[in-house]
Amino acid sequence: MSPAGARLGDLAERFSLELRGDAEYRIVGVATLARAQAGQLGFLANPAYRHALAGSAAGAVVLRDADAAAWPGHALVARDPYVAFARIAALFEVRPERPAGVHASAVVDANASVDPAAHVAPLAVIGARSRIDAGAVIGPGCVVGEDCVVGAGSELVARVTLVRRVRLGRRVLIHPGAVLGADGFGIANDAGQWIKVPQLGGVAVGDDCEIGANTTIDRGALDDTVLHEDVRLDNQIQIGHNVVIGAHTAMAGCVAVAGSTRIGRHCLIGGAAGIGGHLEIADRVTVTAMSFVSSSITAPGEYSSAIPAQDSRAWRRNAARLRRLDAFVRTQLRGHDGGRDD
Amino acid sequence: MSPAGARLGDLAERFSLELRGDAEYRIVGVATLARAQAGQLGFLANPAYRHALAGSAAGAVVLRDADAAAWPGHALVARDPYVAFARIAALFEVRPERPAGVHASAVVDANASVDPAAHVAPLAVIGARSRIDAGAVIGPGCVVGEDCVVGAGSELVARVTLVRRVRLGRRVLIHPGAVLGADGFGIANDAGQWIKVPQLGGVAVGDDCEIGANTTIDRGALDDTVLHEDVRLDNQIQIGHNVVIGAHTAMAGCVAVAGSTRIGRHCLIGGAAGIGGHLEIADRVTVTAMSFVSSSITAPGEYSSAIPAQDSRAWRRNAARLRRLDAFVRTQLRGHDGGRDD
Amino acid sequence: MSPAGARLGDLAERFSLELRGDAEYRIVGVATLARAQAGQLGFLANPAYRHALAGSAAGAVVLRDADAAAWPGHALVARDPYVAFARIAALFEVRPERPAGVHASAVVDANASVDPAAHVAPLAVIGARSRIDAGAVIGPGCVVGEDCVVGAGSELVARVTLVRRVRLGRRVLIHPGAVLGADGFGIANDAGQWIKVPQLGGVAVGDDCEIGANTTIDRGALDDTVLHEDVRLDNQIQIGHNVVIGAHTAMAGCVAVAGSTRIGRHCLIGGAAGIGGHLEIADRVTVTAMSFVSSSITAPGEYSSAIPAQDSRAWRRNAARLRRLDAFVRTQLRGHDGGRDD
Repeated sequence: MSPAGARLGDLAERFSLELRGDAEYRIVGVATLARAQAGQLGFLANPAYRHALAGSAAGAVVLRDADAAAWPGHALVARDPYVAFARIAALFEVRPERPAGVHASAVVDANASVDPAAHVAPLAVIGARSRIDAGAVIGPGCVVGEDCVVGAGSELVARVTLVRRVRLGRRVLIHPGAVLGADGFGIANDAGQWIKVPQLGGVAVGDDCEIGANTTIDRGALDDTVLHEDVRLDNQIQIGHNVVIGAHTAMAGCVAVAGSTRIGRHCLIGGAAGIGGHLEIADRVTVTAMSFVSSSITAPGEYSSAIPAQDSRAWRRNAARLRRLDAFVRTQLRGHDGGRDD
Repeated sequence: MSPAGARLGDLAERFSLELRGDAEYRIVGVATLARAQAGQLGFLANPAYRHALAGSAAGAVVLRDADAAAWPGHALVARDPYVAFARIAALFEVRPERPAGVHASAVVDANASVDPAAHVAPLAVIGARSRIDAGAVIGPGCVVGEDCVVGAGSELVARVTLVRRVRLGRRVLIHPGAVLGADGFGIANDAGQWIKVPQLGGVAVGDDCEIGANTTIDRGALDDTVLHEDVRLDNQIQIGHNVVIGAHTAMAGCVAVAGSTRIGRHCLIGGAAGIGGHLEIADRVTVTAMSFVSSSITAPGEYSSAIPAQDSRAWRRNAARLRRLDAFVRTQLRGHDGGRDD
Repeated sequence: MSPAGARLGDLAERFSLELRGDAEYRIVGVATLARAQAGQLGFLANPAYRHALAGSAAGAVVLRDADAAAWPGHALVARDPYVAFARIAALFEVRPERPAGVHASAVVDANASVDPAAHVAPLAVIGARSRIDAGAVIGPGCVVGEDCVVGAGSELVARVTLVRRVRLGRRVLIHPGAVLGADGFGIANDAGQWIKVPQLGGVAVGDDCEIGANTTIDRGALDDTVLHEDVRLDNQIQIGHNVVIGAHTAMAGCVAVAGSTRIGRHCLIGGAAGIGGHLEIADRVTVTAMSFVSSSITAPGEYSSAIPAQDSRAWRRNAARLRRLDAFVRTQLRGHDGGRDD
């Protein structure tokens, strides 16, 4: 983006939006409705923020047709303002340069292969038989272990670890602290003592996946753990060994998925939800935040089990009743007095 | 602290405590009541440990007036023994020296600025346009990205990542594995395919904050993610983009806060609690462990929704009843037989 | 394992299994029943996968006597097929070589002691007064702080941090991103402002423990945080200061244990379960996934409180009833109409 910014008319044309206002108006940045100033583009996608439209000083706004009447200034009308905004905002993002080449402080194994058009940052480590493709970025402090592939245009932002046998597709983005390919949690109990079960599989990540900070994805016991293309994982997620996640599925932060579960395509998993092991989740399933999935889900739809917090005193009384709900229901059904603690 | 320790009378005077016993008695260390020996100072703050007073071999004890009668030895009487103990114990803490200067193995960008009185440890990385102020400590293996500020006296213990546009105030302490300033989780769905929403904001952390190991705080989409002064976060916490946390709020481990939520001042959030996105939480709100906050809280007080575990067989029966509680209640209110699975 | 693999008869003898079939048959690898080919050994331990036996092309299968009749091929009959498989699979695991010696890029403090038979990988840091014993592996990017011990044969895979006063026994295995010995979360409230409580203890980890990726174990406030021998922790677990975990206890991913709790021997803690602080958990206690333990457990057995997800619309109605369950029960017990929101 040049310092002169973008003509509003050019943005409308480039992103197939309806222009209302002056095509010559120049946009030099993006901001929230509350903070945007002249020359800045705001957006209204979430109806909860509609109230912010009235007082906004934004130079122009991206919004839906239904909201456009309430905005007297320049506007770009979009079917989906959030998508339009995402595309326009990308024009104004300044990303650090990552020139091709290997920094002198990085340690690359003699049997690794780094494309000349890849960037390997300071203090990164690349292990034996690993391959870094053209345009890939291995950020500072990353450790790529043995037998890994980082596909073209993929980026490990910083301090990412690929332990062993991790294969990333193209344009995969992994945030700091993420660990892919650690041993799956395989232990067998032999007369009270644990025996480690070797984890001989790998991790395969499809094109265009994004993996959040401090998320962990274990490698498989025998087969691979698999993320299909365009899977989007937020921070602090735990994916057990041999899990398979279908294309276009997204998970919010702190989700835990136990081993060998298969999750469908286009699923949405809310924050801190837990999904048990060895389950099958159908395509287009939504699980709301902090819910617990303990059996397979065969039909698309939305599933929940989280309880909204209430005043603690009231909650403690309710929870105490819940602890003997079965007894209460049984006595009620029998027509007896019930609810005693038994 | 000299090897000769501290006179009990000096401790009383320095910390405004009431001395009972010999002012000349010398304290050379601190310990729990159960393990303290002659010369060591124990403390009794949590009433659950009152039983340990009787058998303690501590040389002296910090305790409340109400407990002092039960202790025949030297004592320091405090209104708040835990606060008094925290201050006294700090005298006996041996912290590793972190001399000023940049270790030869660290990699500092030519456009970064490191105060001569800052410590940059082995194998740390400092990015372009970042500033490290006097007395700050950048521990081993830390990565500070572009456009960051580490204020005077702040410490990144080890292997901390500040990704981009992270500004820390003074005396901020960040434990290993924490990641501040990673991309917020912004994705827009365009006909089934995800589009990444650029994250153009930063993270602002006030003076005297502490951030636990492997905690993640994403940078804002447009505005900043903000922690006001004296916010205390334990380990493994996830703070979504554009969250604002008021001064003096503390959170126990594994809490998850979704994006754009504003939390008040002096709040206490229990371990593994979850707080939804786009909410407002008032000042002086307590949320107990493993509770789920799904709507805004406008009044101070304590809020809960976690269920205490019970014997699994009993729980399964209760949970089964809960899954059809609405139907049961409705039939009961109508005076019919109910509780069937429908 | 030589390229020629292992004779089936030798495997039977070595691991005390019953051979059914050709003792001369050669096993060159292991695989799941679904993918195993000629020459490969499959296994059947989980009855849920019994259906896969029929179509398997495995060269031989490890299974229970009860399942053996359904398999016409070569077999190794085991009392516990998972244990047998774990032992056999280990023969086929190719682990990267970690030759003795300190990599030139590692930074070892002049007062640290590294056994000549230990391996210190690229870009690792070893702090003052720390000791690395024979056969130990300090992987790439690890930071070992001051006053730590890494016992003989222990391995920090990569990017592990031992902050301070962490003592590992023998054959301890720690996965990337784990942080041991960070400050416990000790804060005292002095008139609204937090004061940090010094964390003067350490962490002691017994022989044969395994600690998962991005797991955090804080050091104690005064005494140590302790894991006895053969404790197995999965990824993303949080262990607060002064927790004690008994021998042979295992925890699945994302468990949170608050400070000063003592957990017994041979316990099993399910994924994302939460355990409150200052509790005592008996030996041989099982806590199922996502359950919340808020008081001490004195008897062995299985404990739960997680709610399985159901269709969201049905769940919201049930949860709404739960929020006023106490009022409903009370009115029912009084014989009045009830269930109103009050």
